[in-house]
Amino acid sequence: MKKTYNEVAGKKVGRIEAISDGVFAVALTLLVLDIKVPVSEIIKTEKDLIDAFCGLTPKFLTYFLSFMTLGIFWTGHSSQYNFIEKSDRNLNWMSLFFLLFVSVLPFTTGFLSEHIHFKFSVFLYWLNIFVLGIVLLIHWNYAIKKGYVSLADDEIETVGKAIQKRIIIAQTLYAIAALLCFINIYLSITVTILIQLNYALAPFEKLKRAGK
Amino acid sequence: MKKTYNEVAGKKVGRIEAISDGVFAVALTLLVLDIKVPVSEIIKTEKDLIDAFCGLTPKFLTYFLSFMTLGIFWTGHSSQYNFIEKSDRNLNWMSLFFLLFVSVLPFTTGFLSEHIHFKFSVFLYWLNIFVLGIVLLIHWNYAIKKGYVSLADDEIETVGKAIQKRIIIAQTLYAIAALLCFINIYLSITVTILIQLNYALAPFEKLKRAGK
Amino acid sequence: MKKTYNEVAGKKVGRIEAISDGVFAVALTLLVLDIKVPVSEIIKTEKDLIDAFCGLTPKFLTYFLSFMTLGIFWTGHSSQYNFIEKSDRNLNWMSLFFLLFVSVLPFTTGFLSEHIHFKFSVFLYWLNIFVLGIVLLIHWNYAIKKGYVSLADDEIETVGKAIQKRIIIAQTLYAIAALLCFINIYLSITVTILIQLNYALAPFEKLKRAGK
Amino acid sequence: MKKTYNEVAGKKVGRIEAISDGVFAVALTLLVLDIKVPVSEIIKTEKDLIDAFCGLTPKFLTYFLSFMTLGIFWTGHSSQYNFIEKSDRNLNWMSLFFLLFVSVLPFTTGFLSEHIHFKFSVFLYWLNIFVLGIVLLIHWNYAIKKGYVSLADDEIETVGKAIQKRIIIAQTLYAIAALLCFINIYLSITVTILIQLNYALAPFEKLKRAGK
Repeated sequence: MKKTYNEVAGKKVGRIEAISDGVFAVALTLLVLDIKVPVSEIIKTEKDLIDAFCGLTPKFLTYFLSFMTLGIFWTGHSSQYNFIEKSDRNLNWMSLFFLLFVSVLPFTTGFLSEHIHFKFSVFLYWLNIFVLGIVLLIHWNYAIKKGYVSLADDEIETVGKAIQKRIIIAQTLYAIAALLCFINIYLSITVTILIQLNYALAPFEKLKRAGK
Repeated sequence: MKKTYNEVAGKKVGRIEAISDGVFAVALTLLVLDIKVPVSEIIKTEKDLIDAFCGLTPKFLTYFLSFMTLGIFWTGHSSQYNFIEKSDRNLNWMSLFFLLFVSVLPFTTGFLSEHIHFKFSVFLYWLNIFVLGIVLLIHWNYAIKKGYVSLADDEIETVGKAIQKRIIIAQTLYAIAALLCFINIYLSITVTILIQLNYALAPFEKLKRAGK
Repeated sequence: MKKTYNEVAGKKVGRIEAISDGVFAVALTLLVLDIKVPVSEIIKTEKDLIDAFCGLTPKFLTYFLSFMTLGIFWTGHSSQYNFIEKSDRNLNWMSLFFLLFVSVLPFTTGFLSEHIHFKFSVFLYWLNIFVLGIVLLIHWNYAIKKGYVSLADDEIETVGKAIQKRIIIAQTLYAIAALLCFINIYLSITVTILIQLNYALAPFEKLKRAGK
Repeated sequence: MKKTYNEVAGKKVGRIEAISDGVFAVALTLLVLDIKVPVSEIIKTEKDLIDAFCGLTPKFLTYFLSFMTLGIFWTGHSSQYNFIEKSDRNLNWMSLFFLLFVSVLPFTTGFLSEHIHFKFSVFLYWLNIFVLGIVLLIHWNYAIKKGYVSLADDEIETVGKAIQKRIIIAQTLYAIAALLCFINIYLSITVTILIQLNYALAPFEKLKRAGK
């Protein structure tokens, strides 16, 4: 039995989804390696231990930040593959470059939590988010242009535009949040997390209605 | 060929299952990194080596504890997806928050094994188990409320309730086990492992009958 | 649309396969973390670097040994799931206990490579292989007993027995190889690797004919 | 319901694809562990931090190099499985040996970035790429010889040859790039990355036309 081209292409989509889920799963779990268990010699009492634990707050903050970042971009990437049903070498490589910046996130997270008082580490972290957003946008536009997306022409107008708009608005908000580091770095990180919580908890009704 | 909404939603379930399996697989395997191989300089004879190995007992105990914890919650999460056949952004994010506390378990495990003589580390470990249970319960209730579960109305009464009840009983037992740390910490850990072995080895006949 | 029990059970098999592949993939890749890159300060010339690299030989030997071990047990476990098409909670937990000893292998490997001159570390490594074999045998016997295996009655006689016999013969050979450590430890490891290469490179024609 | 041989074999292909995606995903993400966040004590100002970050350039260079290497070989391996629809124990073991050299790449990468001024580390890295290419070629030839490939006879002439030719040309280019280390090591690495970017960004039209 010979496979048709569509079956082959469909399989390709399955593989890129599988490696994406793998890279995200590993990155999500590697993040925790940045939170080192406090060493036992210094700790004599329960209070010492609680203090040592509380001293890890910046680590937990950046851990949560990066978990949200990965969750949001995983949702973004897998949402696109709810509609993309064909793929080619170019689209696969766009996904791989996307994964390059996913796999670099545990580094930029560690960099941020270690140097949380410096603007440069906020800039680096924001740059990581920015590139993830840009690659995702290029990925989606390419898939639409090549007709790999399983949407009727009128749906492309609505869903397609909604996905584009969503990335652009999110990126604008992230840029504003990053700029807040000139006032206060914790403010900048907190606002970024609030933006992310908004994306996670408040589903975009418009997009969902369009997707139905 | 255009996908129907159901196909799209079905795919979504596949993706959340894939990333869950990935995070659990990485967390299960990362646990072992907490057990450090004893350094060679101190060890001169076979007896030295056996002693050094036996000195790792608390590490192996917490390793086994956490492997059981992950195994139980993986079974719990994947059992729900035996019945859940649609998903939305909210349900996906509930799963992601669930995975957040899965990926944090290697940390709380390391914390417990490093500070096994302190009540605070038992509390922290229990808190991790508690949040996993709560998120899993919310996840299941939401899926039922939204009608994403492939069960007839009478089955929802039996299977649905059975899954809810199971989480609540397990959590009550875990809380009691955790409180035993006020008597003795090893007792507390041992009882927790016994509860887990009971869940692993004695399948709930009622739930299984209901599921058939 | 309501799922039938078979569909649900089939899905269960998919999940246990997915988490198994995940744990094996992580364990296979974590092994390499045991091979530390030699530090740069000591190394001045190309010859120094080559010497430092050659000094890693025991690490590479145990790395290769463990890669073969994981490859063989992955093949063994996934071969069973070529025939198993239903599952229950018990069978899932047998797989999870199997994975417990898969995820512990990077530790026993590191232990062996660090203490390669001691019999105890060979014993510990052999014990790991032994338990993997035993759990796999129990897993297969349980699946046959419960009728979860998609084989006709006469095939169970041939394929079922072939898989059982294969595990028992392999385990006997591993035990003999381990006992060789009383003569020489490198001999013991080399013979183990030769047994593994034999399993990897010379497929069991009888089993394959039976499987067709 | 009894499975036919084809279904069993088809499943086998699914498993080898799953473990391959897993190993690649972990290797891709482990690479970043080689880039250590600069320690905070030495860093007093934003400029210090930027300098420390810039000092990581060789690490980022080898990180990018290895990400490209893994991306190219993942694409190569998964391309073959667009056509391979049956498998046997031998083919599975060829894939496992392929994955052995995938999982070793984080080590050769670390070795290269730590000893970037030595020819031996370039040689070792090239050897890794070379073995990956050779195993992939043997894998493909074996699959064609055994008739596991879903291509008509005339397609085997075109697609089959194209895949073979592609590996041979790429390997020749990699060998030339590696030899450039006798002139300058950074030149050698840069040319290797350029070759990789060419493979990633310029899809081979001939192969694609043949595949349609």
